[in-house]
Amino acid sequence: MRMAELSTTSGVPVATIKYYLREGLLPAGERSGPNQSFYGQEHLRRLRVIRGLLEVGGLSVAAARQVIEAIDSDLGLAHTFDIAQRTVSPLIDPETLSAEAVAQIDEVLHGWRVSPENPGRLAAARVLQIFAELGQPDLSGWVPGYAAAALAVAEADLDEVDARDDRESKTEMVVVGTVLGDALFAALRRAAQEHVTSTRYTMPPTPAAPTTTAPTSTAPTTP
Amino acid sequence: MRMAELSTTSGVPVATIKYYLREGLLPAGERSGPNQSFYGQEHLRRLRVIRGLLEVGGLSVAAARQVIEAIDSDLGLAHTFDIAQRTVSPLIDPETLSAEAVAQIDEVLHGWRVSPENPGRLAAARVLQIFAELGQPDLSGWVPGYAAAALAVAEADLDEVDARDDRESKTEMVVVGTVLGDALFAALRRAAQEHVTSTRYTMPPTPAAPTTTAPTSTAPTTP
Repeated sequence: MRMAELSTTSGVPVATIKYYLREGLLPAGERSGPNQSFYGQEHLRRLRVIRGLLEVGGLSVAAARQVIEAIDSDLGLAHTFDIAQRTVSPLIDPETLSAEAVAQIDEVLHGWRVSPENPGRLAAARVLQIFAELGQPDLSGWVPGYAAAALAVAEADLDEVDARDDRESKTEMVVVGTVLGDALFAALRRAAQEHVTSTRYTMPPTPAAPTTTAPTSTAPTTP
Repeated sequence: MRMAELSTTSGVPVATIKYYLREGLLPAGERSGPNQSFYGQEHLRRLRVIRGLLEVGGLSVAAARQVIEAIDSDLGLAHTFDIAQRTVSPLIDPETLSAEAVAQIDEVLHGWRVSPENPGRLAAARVLQIFAELGQPDLSGWVPGYAAAALAVAEADLDEVDARDDRESKTEMVVVGTVLGDALFAALRRAAQEHVTSTRYTMPPTPAAPTTTAPTSTAPTTP
């Protein structure tokens, strides 16, 4: 299809598509004339990946390009994970972390095969450090629940990657899942917070907000 | 303490503190002279909350102000949760969501007390819609694992709020926990992904990255 049709089908404005082409996010189309290129289904699909990374994942264009290069690379899954993780994680200088916060997170991660410079380990230590600075150093009842849930989610992530047929769709799931999985979990956590809050505090539904389903007895895992 | 000491103790530059004062993030100090104000421990604590929201949570100054106003308000916990959630969630027009994505998420949330306009419900539907547009509509093996984990995390969140003594520290946990909890979970998910990946694919540790702990047999919840 031509640029105009690619724009109509994807819903992405022509100027934005040209910007993605210039920035190297979208591969060039096949030249079909002096001033014309032909775009295929792979361009449409890539446009949707780009949109997911930028709009839902909140990545910068530079970060999205790194992630897309990982999809197009020949790297193994573990290394693709590593690139995806580093791209979407804040860069943290270990020197700025307190020894207490690092010790706390290593206690939580005890028994996990995690390298010292794993971006998640450092980012988690930083969160604990901020809580400690807020005078809330004892999170021993809170953090282990997060760690157990994170492990369950990581197992689900890898199950989903394993279920994909070919290498391209596996790596796509690794990078898209890493980015969109954060957004999905944060979203479900908000919904779960409303559920748990209204169950515990029996908050009356506001007139504009009737509950979608009433019987809490059918909730999957409420105690 | 004076402004200079507040800056030294908090590590936040004087110009930044003045900016937070102008933007209404930090309450004014007590006037102690024509050109001088006195700041107390509550200013130091608030500066740390602000830093957590802006730097770790990635909130805008306007969003951080809304969250801080919720801490200072007299609203009940459920409403404070609601404000914190709306502030940190992407604003999604339900009209832009496909009926399929909404139906998919409502199936996942079946039995939860969640209002239709819960920002998490809408944001989760949007993520599923993007996956569907990528030609990956069947996530029935993936999303329920996320929902169960989100419910466990929300229970941990509310346990932690309940464990706090007074109203101010409860609401602070609600808003700080909502924002920093996302960052903590995303971080722990990355560490868990490395653990599960290296366990499943037996990736040899790179020379620069020895594993911190070897015995996977002690991992909390691996199958």
